[in-house]
Amino acid sequence: MFGVQKTTLLNIFFIGSGKLAHNLAMAFLQTGDIHIAGVYSRTPAHAKAFAVKFKTIVFNEIKDIPANCDVYFLAVSDTAIQSISDQLLVTGIVVHCSGLMPLSALSAQLHKGVFWPVQTFSGAYELEFKNIPVCIEGNEEEDLKIIEAVAHRISKNVLRVKEKERQQLHLAAVVVNNFTNHLFVVAAKWLQENNLNFDLLKPLITETANKILKVPPYLAQTGPASRKDLVTIAKQEELLTSNPSLLKIYRLISSGIMDNIE
Amino acid sequence: MFGVQKTTLLNIFFIGSGKLAHNLAMAFLQTGDIHIAGVYSRTPAHAKAFAVKFKTIVFNEIKDIPANCDVYFLAVSDTAIQSISDQLLVTGIVVHCSGLMPLSALSAQLHKGVFWPVQTFSGAYELEFKNIPVCIEGNEEEDLKIIEAVAHRISKNVLRVKEKERQQLHLAAVVVNNFTNHLFVVAAKWLQENNLNFDLLKPLITETANKILKVPPYLAQTGPASRKDLVTIAKQEELLTSNPSLLKIYRLISSGIMDNIE
Repeated sequence: MFGVQKTTLLNIFFIGSGKLAHNLAMAFLQTGDIHIAGVYSRTPAHAKAFAVKFKTIVFNEIKDIPANCDVYFLAVSDTAIQSISDQLLVTGIVVHCSGLMPLSALSAQLHKGVFWPVQTFSGAYELEFKNIPVCIEGNEEEDLKIIEAVAHRISKNVLRVKEKERQQLHLAAVVVNNFTNHLFVVAAKWLQENNLNFDLLKPLITETANKILKVPPYLAQTGPASRKDLVTIAKQEELLTSNPSLLKIYRLISSGIMDNIE
Repeated sequence: MFGVQKTTLLNIFFIGSGKLAHNLAMAFLQTGDIHIAGVYSRTPAHAKAFAVKFKTIVFNEIKDIPANCDVYFLAVSDTAIQSISDQLLVTGIVVHCSGLMPLSALSAQLHKGVFWPVQTFSGAYELEFKNIPVCIEGNEEEDLKIIEAVAHRISKNVLRVKEKERQQLHLAAVVVNNFTNHLFVVAAKWLQENNLNFDLLKPLITETANKILKVPPYLAQTGPASRKDLVTIAKQEELLTSNPSLLKIYRLISSGIMDNIE
């Protein structure tokens, strides 16, 4: 039944044509042995642009999607997964790409799995996929092997995970991506309020991320709180009296840093 | 009086031989027209290693430091600046390298300034200096011009700032560096508690920092809080009941993200 056993050319299908779908399609195209059989999107113009870029075919109705592709990528928002899956009448493996949603959101599918790349994707450019970890799940060993083979075509870091592990990892991803970015947002606002340019922080932000590639984060910690420099902390809190929301973050994270030193 | 007006070869002196001194010395050596006249450190072994690496001379007593170098870099901890400055009997310009300490910490000096690179330095490797912003201050225009000329030798981004602006920028640097790193620390601990590998987050951390080089941070925001996805937030809070310190951060930052969306 599955192409992977009969031929090296795997047929995959994209449902959704957003940032993740673009990044996945680009990575798969570059492997040379994956065929993108088609694309469906709620927004036909997006599906068309995707089809032109990746030389594939648009299907305008879910019911018209060919039933026998090897893998269907449900690259849609978490809230759309269940409802699209419910309408999808196919025999191939359907995978969703969410860090959070349970496999059971694909209850309508006989063959199902999860294909979650631990990364944030931008509309502006495609990322090199080979170093991006891909967490996979499946409810049958046979399906899981195919999902694994497909994942290995684009990533050298493929992990079989349990649902709870994926959710724990997703939570950590929220912390290092969404929360870190929020710190960038509040720092940018603070600088803007004081007529200073956020660009001044860019080399520091780059180096902050680079450093933990080389040393564990707890060894990379510096600054007033890590020195328990209460005089500096008091001065900085005073500077922040005009900005109560940043002051709250300042207090909580500074005390967290100090707790970790003890 | 100052070498910069008589010759292109500037004489600089390092007081302190830590990470910042190493990074500055490497950058200055590469310019070819700066001479490192000597080094002093509280820890003689560190001064010696520095002197060997940068082909300069160790001075073991503050009182023996030659008086007529062009610029003295006080690359020491904030708390040591005032006391070392008080013992330093020189005629050249003394600059401290702190984001936080006032210029008045150098009250014993006739010619003084601030030379603050907006960056975090590691012991493990030297950074390319040319893109690192350097904030400078001085109490006389003549001194400031020399400090500026010296800074321009190693950085293409030299800014004259006021003391308060430097402190505001330093606070933002604490947020994007120390606080971001704390998020990495708590995420690493959370993963360790759950037997998951922090390395899985490294490509995401790299991309989180890369993204804001291309788009403003408020446009780079994604995740449950930015979608006001209260169902997911409630699920993640439940996952965190075993980790009250991360739960506090989760609640505060998630609500901050939601407030910014409104």
